[in-house]
Amino acid sequence: MLTSGGDAPGMNAAIRSVVRTGLYYGLEVYGIVRGYHGMVNDDIFQMESKSVANIIQRGGTILKSARCMEFFTPEGRQKAYDNLLKRGIEGLIVIGGDGSFTGALKLSTEFGFPVIGLPGTIDKDLYGSDFTIGFDTAVNTAIDAIDKIRDTADAHDRLFIVEVMGRHAGYLALHSGIATGAENILIPESETHIDDVIASLSEKEKRKKLVNLIVVAEGDEFGGAMEVAKVVRERLPQMDTRVSILGHIQRGGAPTCIDRILASRVGFHAVESLIQGRFNVMVGIINDKIAYTPLEIAIREKDKINEDWLRMVKILSS
Amino acid sequence: MLTSGGDAPGMNAAIRSVVRTGLYYGLEVYGIVRGYHGMVNDDIFQMESKSVANIIQRGGTILKSARCMEFFTPEGRQKAYDNLLKRGIEGLIVIGGDGSFTGALKLSTEFGFPVIGLPGTIDKDLYGSDFTIGFDTAVNTAIDAIDKIRDTADAHDRLFIVEVMGRHAGYLALHSGIATGAENILIPESETHIDDVIASLSEKEKRKKLVNLIVVAEGDEFGGAMEVAKVVRERLPQMDTRVSILGHIQRGGAPTCIDRILASRVGFHAVESLIQGRFNVMVGIINDKIAYTPLEIAIREKDKINEDWLRMVKILSS
Amino acid sequence: MLTSGGDAPGMNAAIRSVVRTGLYYGLEVYGIVRGYHGMVNDDIFQMESKSVANIIQRGGTILKSARCMEFFTPEGRQKAYDNLLKRGIEGLIVIGGDGSFTGALKLSTEFGFPVIGLPGTIDKDLYGSDFTIGFDTAVNTAIDAIDKIRDTADAHDRLFIVEVMGRHAGYLALHSGIATGAENILIPESETHIDDVIASLSEKEKRKKLVNLIVVAEGDEFGGAMEVAKVVRERLPQMDTRVSILGHIQRGGAPTCIDRILASRVGFHAVESLIQGRFNVMVGIINDKIAYTPLEIAIREKDKINEDWLRMVKILSS
Amino acid sequence: MLTSGGDAPGMNAAIRSVVRTGLYYGLEVYGIVRGYHGMVNDDIFQMESKSVANIIQRGGTILKSARCMEFFTPEGRQKAYDNLLKRGIEGLIVIGGDGSFTGALKLSTEFGFPVIGLPGTIDKDLYGSDFTIGFDTAVNTAIDAIDKIRDTADAHDRLFIVEVMGRHAGYLALHSGIATGAENILIPESETHIDDVIASLSEKEKRKKLVNLIVVAEGDEFGGAMEVAKVVRERLPQMDTRVSILGHIQRGGAPTCIDRILASRVGFHAVESLIQGRFNVMVGIINDKIAYTPLEIAIREKDKINEDWLRMVKILSS
Repeated sequence: MLTSGGDAPGMNAAIRSVVRTGLYYGLEVYGIVRGYHGMVNDDIFQMESKSVANIIQRGGTILKSARCMEFFTPEGRQKAYDNLLKRGIEGLIVIGGDGSFTGALKLSTEFGFPVIGLPGTIDKDLYGSDFTIGFDTAVNTAIDAIDKIRDTADAHDRLFIVEVMGRHAGYLALHSGIATGAENILIPESETHIDDVIASLSEKEKRKKLVNLIVVAEGDEFGGAMEVAKVVRERLPQMDTRVSILGHIQRGGAPTCIDRILASRVGFHAVESLIQGRFNVMVGIINDKIAYTPLEIAIREKDKINEDWLRMVKILSS
Repeated sequence: MLTSGGDAPGMNAAIRSVVRTGLYYGLEVYGIVRGYHGMVNDDIFQMESKSVANIIQRGGTILKSARCMEFFTPEGRQKAYDNLLKRGIEGLIVIGGDGSFTGALKLSTEFGFPVIGLPGTIDKDLYGSDFTIGFDTAVNTAIDAIDKIRDTADAHDRLFIVEVMGRHAGYLALHSGIATGAENILIPESETHIDDVIASLSEKEKRKKLVNLIVVAEGDEFGGAMEVAKVVRERLPQMDTRVSILGHIQRGGAPTCIDRILASRVGFHAVESLIQGRFNVMVGIINDKIAYTPLEIAIREKDKINEDWLRMVKILSS
Repeated sequence: MLTSGGDAPGMNAAIRSVVRTGLYYGLEVYGIVRGYHGMVNDDIFQMESKSVANIIQRGGTILKSARCMEFFTPEGRQKAYDNLLKRGIEGLIVIGGDGSFTGALKLSTEFGFPVIGLPGTIDKDLYGSDFTIGFDTAVNTAIDAIDKIRDTADAHDRLFIVEVMGRHAGYLALHSGIATGAENILIPESETHIDDVIASLSEKEKRKKLVNLIVVAEGDEFGGAMEVAKVVRERLPQMDTRVSILGHIQRGGAPTCIDRILASRVGFHAVESLIQGRFNVMVGIINDKIAYTPLEIAIREKDKINEDWLRMVKILSS
Repeated sequence: MLTSGGDAPGMNAAIRSVVRTGLYYGLEVYGIVRGYHGMVNDDIFQMESKSVANIIQRGGTILKSARCMEFFTPEGRQKAYDNLLKRGIEGLIVIGGDGSFTGALKLSTEFGFPVIGLPGTIDKDLYGSDFTIGFDTAVNTAIDAIDKIRDTADAHDRLFIVEVMGRHAGYLALHSGIATGAENILIPESETHIDDVIASLSEKEKRKKLVNLIVVAEGDEFGGAMEVAKVVRERLPQMDTRVSILGHIQRGGAPTCIDRILASRVGFHAVESLIQGRFNVMVGIINDKIAYTPLEIAIREKDKINEDWLRMVKILSS
């Protein structure tokens, strides 16, 4: 097992679940340190029940994560594969996002090695699971921060433009924006019409609604919070406009209940799935049921943003 | 609109959503204070967009809640109905649990008054919605408290028996127990075999696993945390056994993202449903889609506890 | 070094500070596991800088705590002393409360062994330090819980009687009561006049102030929250009166800034003090300056409750 | 009473205290909306006990804050003074920082109007009070955020450079840096030697200590986090260096116990001080006792950073 890519709260709960379930079924369980880097460099250790005591509530990942250039080369992957082989390892569980799954697929394709992916990313940009490990925690961290910003926005009658994470997906922005009553939510999945944003701010100013909040996904096609603020300041110079970029705080912290249970469930079923000979899939949860999605589909396909939600945002923030 | 029964975090987000959606569609929206008590005693006021500013993140309910004996009598209900009628009120949205819905059904049956229920209870004991407003917040409050108790349990090698709310339903106990890695979870939906609990504690003691956690639902058929502790202390007197009853802190606090979005969505659709002439239903969310369940079924039917979860608890806590 | 007595948030920050400072000065630093129990039973290990990495923010104590009957006997203490001696240990730092300091004094009196105490107790019942390690965290945990209870009290117009820890000292009750706007605060240091409490509740009821909060110290001479509730229910049966006992959640959680800095400072100066040959003292902070108080005085003397505060409580809650 | 300048958590607790104390002594209490702006524009309203119900725990300020250019002119101040006079207002309590106090002094100098300042700023840059209202909350918000960043730093072996608020004062950086175990803390009060910072990072890298944290005050004379990161990336390009600017989240949130009690105490004594005819002072707390400092001194003088703390930082982070 390894964790790879950006860390996400709940990864430790998944690690605990894989270890405990594996041991229960009489397997040997190995942890690979720093993702594919540890696989190439043979930084691998056997895990016991004690290795995962008291970690279910911790953010980050005890197996650490890192980028690994060497794994992109055939020689690197051969070394990695040899390291698995010499320990008699028969299957790999990868907790991470699409980049991590792409690496796993290489192992599967080139060496026929059985791999399973667990959706571990705060961005919720994988196909095949309603939630991903870390998303619910990240979105709650974001709304906690935005609630605090609301306090100060309200005290000063300010417009705040808050940027949340999400390079390719707007879920964090959409969920945190609805949950904090944002007037506008700008996400990559829907085109940003800056004129409409300005018009709605102008109209609110006329109604003396001076406290306003715009939530922007880092990857919005119009640009991040700074770009939006630039236009607002040019066209509505009388507004007291501030920018806040939440940044890395969204990755950390104790995982929420949703993330701990999701991580526990998919970790549990990943081990059972390996034992049953079902692999090259991501284990996710759809409609509260365990779902197995081929890794290449989990990476390639995208969920659609619910149009009904965008309609609701307009009505509730009016 | 009224809130009734035990308050639940997210009720204010639902109130905000109903008001804003109603105003958007050109309706007049009235708030009834203290549930059926305010309806009988004519404590009703018209709500504007400003009435619900800055409440999406607040626990409790700005419409307050109370018990009302008078509404149980035909005379009381007649007074209540007259108060609605004289303002030209044409439909009622009730945010609460099964007791609150029973009251709404009376209005519907006796006077043909259109009612809609929104699932507002931390217990998650209604049929027709995967989540209820307040449940996710309550369970996260519980795990935050249990994480703190773990710190002290760990420092002293103690067994903690923690009682969470849930008079008829074990969801709070089940979710918070899994999320905190509890060794045993005792809920009303599955029979408690106290001999098995004692045996598992004994076995763990032999393995020098001294820090243990049992989560008990207040309504477990064996009894609450005190009863369990009594038996443990008799049969395993050498263990350092402590009890903690979480109590009312589980009801309060800023709602989580899940609860705010759930409340916003069902509030939004409740108004649209009334406009469309669909009523005497509870508006819930099943598999991420809006679901309309007749009120009498929402009250009467019960969801089943997932057997797979109970199997997982056994394996992960071993 | 050992931790003893009830655990308190910030103990780990103190341990980190002692270890790092000791290593900086070229000392060998040993951790004793489970307080005097580990000293008697030779559960002692050498600590490195890595032993204390990433613990400054953790609740509980990595050195654990336990009661030890054997240490109360001369034989037990002889064994403990021999265990220190055989490792060449030349001084002991004890993090705990008055019980823990009493044990340290025994070692000092009987064997002339140099000891230093650090004030580690959530009760703030030691003389010689304005704050004790853990108090600020515990009081913030309490007010966070009481804020949540306020939400539900406010929704239902209830009287809540909340019991906080403090068997002999009312500081937790006094601070958390002021900080949450409690109408009455009952502490062991001042006599409880239950008739005055009832009168003030009656008077508030007349003014339609229905939401009320009483904070009671567990060790109030009148009795805990249950006893107070009993009287209130007898004499004001029309009030909706609820009890909440906060219990063990007050001990856990990540320490606040105050507790981390206090712990770091006293740990740092404890080591310097040992090196300088100043011992049999508690290292505390008075008026933001390091203060050395003989251990027997730290145990015996008591701070006075500020009368000005009690006067303020009356006025602000009116 | 007015609040002015940047908002700070605890301002509402101070407002509540002033109102309740004033009413207790039979005074009429007026709230001025948006600071000096409301004073010039006659946005003033009478406050009752109910006006301040349930606000002790809220961030922000219910009286709002704003800049006011007009008050900088003699005509503006005359209008402001007339507005006070026509209501028979006999004294002014200003909650804010040095800018706000400067305004109050103008009123005092030009019109002989009695004013009192309460230290309300998260920066703790006023002379005459050990703490200022909002500082303890802001620093705890900062350490909570940095703890989260630590999770992700630890997972990826990264160097994080975190910028906290403090344009002229390094207290937020110093306290939050010590509390999170930062390796380097850069503040305006002590000269930043960037070569030393680089050297210490290099040395740590050699010891394979890869997770590092630098906390920088926004107003450090070397520049903010971006400037520091630029130099580190040039000279230590192999390090994985990230920047996080905490920004406005530090201003909001429910106040801590320290801030609520401080605000309550100084608000209480401000009213008593006005009644006793003591004014043109800031009411602060020094060594746990109420202290009255002439406003011009509170603005002009500066506390010294404790050299002992800086020595400790070096030793504990080694």
